[in-house]
Amino acid sequence: MAVIECVPNVSEGRRQDVIDKLADDLRAIPGMRVLDVQSDAAHNRSVFTLAGDAAALTAGIPTLFEGAIAAIDLTGHQGEHPRLGAVDVTPFIPIEGATMAECVTLAKSIAATVSERFSLPVYLYEEASSNPARKNLEDIRRGEFEGLAAKMAQPGWAPDFGPATPHPTAGASVIGARMALIAYNINLNTNRLAVAKKVAAAIRMSSGGLRYVKAMGIPLEDRGLVQVSINLTNYEKTPIFRVFDLVKREAARYGVSVVESEIVGLVPAAALRQSVEYYLQLEGFSGDQVLENKLRSDDRR
Amino acid sequence: MAVIECVPNVSEGRRQDVIDKLADDLRAIPGMRVLDVQSDAAHNRSVFTLAGDAAALTAGIPTLFEGAIAAIDLTGHQGEHPRLGAVDVTPFIPIEGATMAECVTLAKSIAATVSERFSLPVYLYEEASSNPARKNLEDIRRGEFEGLAAKMAQPGWAPDFGPATPHPTAGASVIGARMALIAYNINLNTNRLAVAKKVAAAIRMSSGGLRYVKAMGIPLEDRGLVQVSINLTNYEKTPIFRVFDLVKREAARYGVSVVESEIVGLVPAAALRQSVEYYLQLEGFSGDQVLENKLRSDDRR
Repeated sequence: MAVIECVPNVSEGRRQDVIDKLADDLRAIPGMRVLDVQSDAAHNRSVFTLAGDAAALTAGIPTLFEGAIAAIDLTGHQGEHPRLGAVDVTPFIPIEGATMAECVTLAKSIAATVSERFSLPVYLYEEASSNPARKNLEDIRRGEFEGLAAKMAQPGWAPDFGPATPHPTAGASVIGARMALIAYNINLNTNRLAVAKKVAAAIRMSSGGLRYVKAMGIPLEDRGLVQVSINLTNYEKTPIFRVFDLVKREAARYGVSVVESEIVGLVPAAALRQSVEYYLQLEGFSGDQVLENKLRSDDRR
Repeated sequence: MAVIECVPNVSEGRRQDVIDKLADDLRAIPGMRVLDVQSDAAHNRSVFTLAGDAAALTAGIPTLFEGAIAAIDLTGHQGEHPRLGAVDVTPFIPIEGATMAECVTLAKSIAATVSERFSLPVYLYEEASSNPARKNLEDIRRGEFEGLAAKMAQPGWAPDFGPATPHPTAGASVIGARMALIAYNINLNTNRLAVAKKVAAAIRMSSGGLRYVKAMGIPLEDRGLVQVSINLTNYEKTPIFRVFDLVKREAARYGVSVVESEIVGLVPAAALRQSVEYYLQLEGFSGDQVLENKLRSDDRR
């Protein structure tokens, strides 16, 4: 049976009742698995990690859009994380028994559905986009909700689906397909935002850093700290530990240490094994040596 | 269904046909799961990681003894790892749905069976032993096969089961029950055995080191390296990363670096997570965030 992961990011991270209702409505969809819900009050954003086959997602994702659009009004929305829409971005990710092509098809079909039902402009991104200027989420999102009307008026920024002007409260939405990524935050022991921004610039590909890294520096006001908020878009090629070690080194240049890090949502076991193997200098280690994997394997020989 | 792990260590690590036959005979036992087989030619020792319920182990373990005793003649046996018997040590470990008490009962019952069937002296150890002088494997094994006749003649060293003199080719066997341990080797970039022995002495509890660590230094002749061979007997209290970092530091005192490390056999996922959390300074991380765990969980909500 096909397993496709879908990770909608919605622009609500503070009202728990709203978040809970969105999650409960998703759980009610047959065949929809709600693997994880992560909310961040500083970002004012929640990330739902879902899994199902194409049929379950086709039924369930429009329901999420319905609830989010009804509950979230972006006029006056404040949060540390950039956002374009009430449902900001919805990627589909092939996990098992599904291909990237199938995920692209699914993304386009759901984009067509929600744009029509909710009069919502939708941009395709990553593998679902055939326009290099509109492939990267950051390029599409630049200007955010507040700059959307002006952006959509420019040549080259008409949406892939839906009306030519923003939804008044839900903005626009980005939908597409991509490989599994790891959402990873590293908190630094300073309140100087400039340090987090400099470290982010040092590690991300766009400004000269590691290839499969996106990063930005944001403040954590209530804690008096700053955060390097990171997306690892290909952990197999650019592993977690290399990014962590580089952040430590770059932060040390400013006399700043790492307080802690956090993985947001789900992470493939292989990515964790990579880091264990690196730090412990483990040779010849295999996932088959993990006791729980062995016990659950179907091979009873 | 109860899952009891059993990890027999046998004194054969070089003759692949012998090891394969022992493994195949185990696989043929209904309900016996052969999770892993690790052989080490330098140690001249193999470790079988098995899992099953009490019934499967009661049927299967005596079969292992039969095969090992027939194939392994300890007179003239050479290997870096200390050994008392053809089947050197057989611990039973409660994993799921089984208690330590049940594992102790199982150990004693199998000890009675094999001692009688094969005229083999058997010593109980760890949780199965009620004698503090004969609880620790190292205390029982001291003197090894070659010193066994003299040892068994002493007061206080009559075996718990079986004859009062060694089996002529199979020596004696140690059987018991304990918590899961991690077998972990760290290879050092030197051929000076004294360095490995000093590092081992520094890290192990018996000579002043970390509480839940047993360790010894051995040569890896064919590689021109030395090895600190470690058992972590309670990884929850004395974690892998702390032992690794201490070995690095203690070896550096001699100008020696760590070449690599290896985990022998199986390791609980939690022990790996501990190390990832330590090195990446991960906060709030849970095994539920591992994608494969989520996909396999029975909770489809």
